Amino acid sequence: MIDAYQSLSERFAMIADIDGAAAILSWDKAAMMPDGGATARGRSLATLSTLSHRFLTESQIADWLAEAQPPDDPWHKANLREMRRAHDQATVLPSDLVEKMSLATSESEMVWREARAKDDFSLFAPKLETVIGLVREKAAALAETFGLTPYDALLDAFDPGRRAASFDAAFEDLAAYLPGLLDQVIEHQARQPATVHPEGPFDHAQQKTLGIEIMQVLGFDFERGRLDESHHPFTGGLPDDSRLTTRYDDADFTSSLMAVVHETGHALYEQGRPADWRRQPVGRSWGMTVHESQSLLFEMQAGRSRPLIAFLAPKLKAAFGGDGPAYDVANLIRLYHKVERGLIRVDADEVSYPLHVILRYRLEKALLADDLKVDDLPGAWADGMRDLLNIAPPDDRDGCLQDIHWAMGAIGYFPTYTLGAMAAAQLFQTAQSVMPSLPDDLAQGRFAPLLAWLRETIHGRGRLDEAGAVIEKATGHPLDAAALKRHLEARYLADA
Amino acid sequence: MIDAYQSLSERFAMIADIDGAAAILSWDKAAMMPDGGATARGRSLATLSTLSHRFLTESQIADWLAEAQPPDDPWHKANLREMRRAHDQATVLPSDLVEKMSLATSESEMVWREARAKDDFSLFAPKLETVIGLVREKAAALAETFGLTPYDALLDAFDPGRRAASFDAAFEDLAAYLPGLLDQVIEHQARQPATVHPEGPFDHAQQKTLGIEIMQVLGFDFERGRLDESHHPFTGGLPDDSRLTTRYDDADFTSSLMAVVHETGHALYEQGRPADWRRQPVGRSWGMTVHESQSLLFEMQAGRSRPLIAFLAPKLKAAFGGDGPAYDVANLIRLYHKVERGLIRVDADEVSYPLHVILRYRLEKALLADDLKVDDLPGAWADGMRDLLNIAPPDDRDGCLQDIHWAMGAIGYFPTYTLGAMAAAQLFQTAQSVMPSLPDDLAQGRFAPLLAWLRETIHGRGRLDEAGAVIEKATGHPLDAAALKRHLEARYLADA
Repeated sequence: MIDAYQSLSERFAMIADIDGAAAILSWDKAAMMPDGGATARGRSLATLSTLSHRFLTESQIADWLAEAQPPDDPWHKANLREMRRAHDQATVLPSDLVEKMSLATSESEMVWREARAKDDFSLFAPKLETVIGLVREKAAALAETFGLTPYDALLDAFDPGRRAASFDAAFEDLAAYLPGLLDQVIEHQARQPATVHPEGPFDHAQQKTLGIEIMQVLGFDFERGRLDESHHPFTGGLPDDSRLTTRYDDADFTSSLMAVVHETGHALYEQGRPADWRRQPVGRSWGMTVHESQSLLFEMQAGRSRPLIAFLAPKLKAAFGGDGPAYDVANLIRLYHKVERGLIRVDADEVSYPLHVILRYRLEKALLADDLKVDDLPGAWADGMRDLLNIAPPDDRDGCLQDIHWAMGAIGYFPTYTLGAMAAAQLFQTAQSVMPSLPDDLAQGRFAPLLAWLRETIHGRGRLDEAGAVIEKATGHPLDAAALKRHLEARYLADA
Repeated sequence: MIDAYQSLSERFAMIADIDGAAAILSWDKAAMMPDGGATARGRSLATLSTLSHRFLTESQIADWLAEAQPPDDPWHKANLREMRRAHDQATVLPSDLVEKMSLATSESEMVWREARAKDDFSLFAPKLETVIGLVREKAAALAETFGLTPYDALLDAFDPGRRAASFDAAFEDLAAYLPGLLDQVIEHQARQPATVHPEGPFDHAQQKTLGIEIMQVLGFDFERGRLDESHHPFTGGLPDDSRLTTRYDDADFTSSLMAVVHETGHALYEQGRPADWRRQPVGRSWGMTVHESQSLLFEMQAGRSRPLIAFLAPKLKAAFGGDGPAYDVANLIRLYHKVERGLIRVDADEVSYPLHVILRYRLEKALLADDLKVDDLPGAWADGMRDLLNIAPPDDRDGCLQDIHWAMGAIGYFPTYTLGAMAAAQLFQTAQSVMPSLPDDLAQGRFAPLLAWLRETIHGRGRLDEAGAVIEKATGHPLDAAALKRHLEARYLADA
């Protein structure tokens, strides 16, 4: 008799092979593919996705899951739990709802682009209305099966195990605290010397060479990955074949470089997944919050820290033959610590970023609960911006039309950015307490101890822990905003 | 009731999506993948290959093929014929033979590498013995099903529709004619001025820029393809996403450049496949002979022609800041027309290349028929080299151990190189007779008329014609060696 758990393991390995193929093809699509390849690539990716879904949802999987007796070992037990999670997520929604959602979101994404270009919310509103309606149906189905509130049911797909009740207080705390901090920091920075921007043009090849050098400093393994270019920076591929991209700006190397550091944080998490579980669900990384905690730990906590910027300064000078005050450490720190009140989330600094997220979190909960009508969204957005950021959007393009997430039906996604920032701060402060030499290490570009600690506490554990538990376990403390607040005060108010 | 032909069309489209994914992943493996990705990539490719084979061989396919009533149109009828061919080829061999062959060839390839490095045929002989035994079994099974001789049954898999009887006379003709021609040409060239080699180093980026420029001259569509680097030049990818590779030698740009021209010939065939049949069997290119006819038409017929070399000369000078006698047109022509008696097939010029092929053709037929024992292969090889090329290999490394083909069980492959050269010459001479301006076109780098003719007669027809008929149809003449002989005499003896 064939063992059910063994059959499941083989099945999930095959699914991993298909998904791994799709991961490389998706990277290729963004980084390599000529335009003419789009039709065939779309078909290949759709076919691979259909096959992956079919192999995950076939009726025998449910039988195997019911019968499976994994070996008495925490990894195998967690693996079975994660097999069940993957199967449940794939089977819980009726296929006609999945299809309606897919059609509605691809139409609404298209219309969103047009509406944004024309700054015309009325074009987008009916499409968003439809999408929100379907998201409500989806949330209701998930909520019933998993015994969650509708919002938590959506959130769970992006961040397994996370519940709104666990961070509502932290978000309210930040909403009350950050507007005042923002005022203080802006005032504080106004008294500092003006920032000097390094003058370009900056050769792309030199920017790439510098990016590779810094990725190596951070611990990225180029035997198991590459750096390329794409329109938007991202990390794709597989643990042993990590595909990281950035884009280069002739006139400014600083944002591309920090994008590389951010993506390297994501890639190091993937490269550090447990080697023995490459093709099994327990070997996967966790969702968005844990992933963002790694990218922000590298970008915001370590990457923009004073000791690391001091370490990088001579490398930047050398890479671009830079000279003069723009390359002074103090100036580079001012450049990378600049805080500004702005309309756009993706351009926001780390002081104001959570306020952009909290606005969206409040609005998307209200939309889902039907406490806010789609037609009233622009007004509610403007009100929220005034309340939280003390700034009013002059139009919808840079207001409620700026993000694609809702057009894609992704409700429950936004909080993970700020949960990731909270987790990054909490992890970094724990790392500092267990490794007092951390600032010295960073000043010398020595990332091995920090990476080893992350490998042990986060990366190498895969999904061994219960969902939502890994940050708490690594830091010995429930996730809250205290560490993030300490970090922001120390960085932005403590000294010049 | 669902139409059987429609079901087949959908099934083959899905198989094309899977095979297309594998084509890009295989290119990535050679051109992009870091070493660490090898294990996961091997698994993904194996899984895609298993799925493709499973979807092609499932029992319902045979039922659909029996029932299918395609629309009354030559394309649909040819499509059904090619569906049947693909299914027959995939199902005719018992799966235990396929598995034994796969194990035996991967072992023999490994041992071949070692035996070649050590120049020790006795290491390789028992493995080759095993492989030949399995190839005999395979040939017998194919021969019985398809009503062919064992050799033709193997050949048919590489070049559908080709039969040994159709080219035995041409090969004997070449075997009798070329040794004398080779003597004459070598004598003729000895009286010419010495060839001067352009002096490097040649920057890789400049070689690439030049390669792209020349690919564009030839008609390669960069909206539907790319040029990259790999250890061995090849053309992969898909018709609308063609992935061509070359390698660069610091000290010599000439071979890399001609490799690009050769691969562009392959790629143009793929890019020109009928747009309406992208995912169906009738839209595929034909086998090795037709493919090699396109690469050799571009490399040997057009690429090394006097008018084209004259057109390229100023571009080469400009690309590398070249100067002096090495970049004179007459010298470049001598360089690209150099004929030498040599031991190694892959280094051979076009005068001696067919002799290397004919040697292998004779030997592999004798091995298959058991008229030649594996242990007697080194001696038979040396005898054949003396007879045909008037040169004796000093060892087996550069003798019967030089090629991987037999280690892979690829018997019936070698003739397609020379059949391709014969076809290239025959096609080019037909093109010249229907387009008298062809030499002038080449002198001005104007490839559009030649490409349009190839698109109409070869590329755009896919597999519409009966197997093995497309060259004959395009040239109005059965494939023979006459055009190749005329070409060689005109190029190598006519003038200095």
